[in-house]
Amino acid sequence: MNISLIGSGNVATHLAQALYDLKHQIVQVYSQNLKNAQQLASLVQAQPVYQLQELQPADLYLIAVKDSAIAEIAAQLAPLNIQGIVAHTSGSTALDAIQQSSPHYGVFYPLQTFSKAKAVDFSQVPLLLEGSSAKVIQQLDILARQLSTQVYHYSTQQRRSLHLAAVIACNFSNYLYSVADDYLTRQGVDFDLLKPLILETASKIQHHAPIHMQTGPAVRHDQGILDMHQQMLESQPQLQQVYELLSQGIMHLHMSGNKN
Amino acid sequence: MNISLIGSGNVATHLAQALYDLKHQIVQVYSQNLKNAQQLASLVQAQPVYQLQELQPADLYLIAVKDSAIAEIAAQLAPLNIQGIVAHTSGSTALDAIQQSSPHYGVFYPLQTFSKAKAVDFSQVPLLLEGSSAKVIQQLDILARQLSTQVYHYSTQQRRSLHLAAVIACNFSNYLYSVADDYLTRQGVDFDLLKPLILETASKIQHHAPIHMQTGPAVRHDQGILDMHQQMLESQPQLQQVYELLSQGIMHLHMSGNKN
Repeated sequence: MNISLIGSGNVATHLAQALYDLKHQIVQVYSQNLKNAQQLASLVQAQPVYQLQELQPADLYLIAVKDSAIAEIAAQLAPLNIQGIVAHTSGSTALDAIQQSSPHYGVFYPLQTFSKAKAVDFSQVPLLLEGSSAKVIQQLDILARQLSTQVYHYSTQQRRSLHLAAVIACNFSNYLYSVADDYLTRQGVDFDLLKPLILETASKIQHHAPIHMQTGPAVRHDQGILDMHQQMLESQPQLQQVYELLSQGIMHLHMSGNKN
Repeated sequence: MNISLIGSGNVATHLAQALYDLKHQIVQVYSQNLKNAQQLASLVQAQPVYQLQELQPADLYLIAVKDSAIAEIAAQLAPLNIQGIVAHTSGSTALDAIQQSSPHYGVFYPLQTFSKAKAVDFSQVPLLLEGSSAKVIQQLDILARQLSTQVYHYSTQQRRSLHLAAVIACNFSNYLYSVADDYLTRQGVDFDLLKPLILETASKIQHHAPIHMQTGPAVRHDQGILDMHQQMLESQPQLQQVYELLSQGIMHLHMSGNKN
């Protein structure tokens, strides 16, 4: 396929490289910031552009920009009379947000966390598809299955639920890792010691329901430790609040009869 | 070594099995609940006992009971005139809590999460040691290095800091996984789709500082998505509160100049 990228951030970069590796032709890379467009374009032998009017015909235009900019991009694409498929890559934006962009539009959402510093193996990344017609979905499906074994046709509402759950389970976990790192650094203890435990915690729930894997002082109702931890966090009131709320959450979840 | 276990829960079970696999002799397994003692003892060819007075001479007694019971166990061991090393396995209990138990006492804390349902590879588990004398530490060190490549001599305060950080980074993350699972189930979406993302989130910080791996709407200050998520959680006020507090935490952490 001839594919152009609209955007040059983490998602655009990883998708462009994965599609390029699959021998698709990356036609153009658009970014408002020409330098960013040039940087990504050079990696995938594409033409960098910084004005949407410069977009050439392509089979697929993938919009990978921040959510708040998607509708505006779609509005700017409207007068360009695009005949290819325009698909956004967002977890939370409705399919209809890009209705104006082309007669053929869809969603191509990779449920994964992308950082420029770290390569991603797409083969296990769930790809959630939506389309303005069965034909659009079919074409996105063919492309998606070249990238991944995990391809799903999901409604906007289902996709939004997954994205919210991903924020809770992943973005917030990463925040907790950061807080633990910061706390240990203040105590002169090496955060590296925690890394095997963090990995094991995420590995355990691959094959067991997380509610049955809960350990720690809150689920044991070990008030002595809970109190000691509150005291140890006395100089960090915001972290104290996080500790309190999540411990209460654990106790509440395990009291409501969910525990086996 | 001749080793007896005081306790029959997750930590006792995994330690007993790992030491048994290393050809140490597991002499006895104590539990107040004889059935639990019998169950573990049968796995490691040990004698089950349900009264501390029945303990026979051993080189090492490992206490693996809940924190609140450790001091009482130590008090009950006091009159037994034990000559071997008595070591507890807790992250948060002071070394001195078991001072009465024997002239030779220490701490043998495996920094890992144990569930009976899941086997643990001890070789990468950090073992934190403390002892009443250099000789005790040395003997625990020899044993620890048979189990793991990650052996550290840490003070009670350092060990407590690590345990608190582990609660934050791991117990709380597992709670967030549970909450995400519960939420998706209510929405009729399969939690399995999140699993690769959860694993990738934990994998990323093995080689990168977590603060530099933060993604999601909060760190992007994407108010539109943050508001939509709050609305989607309207029927679950406690989860709404968790979402709000952790999102604020992310914004705060990344404003305080920690971001690269």
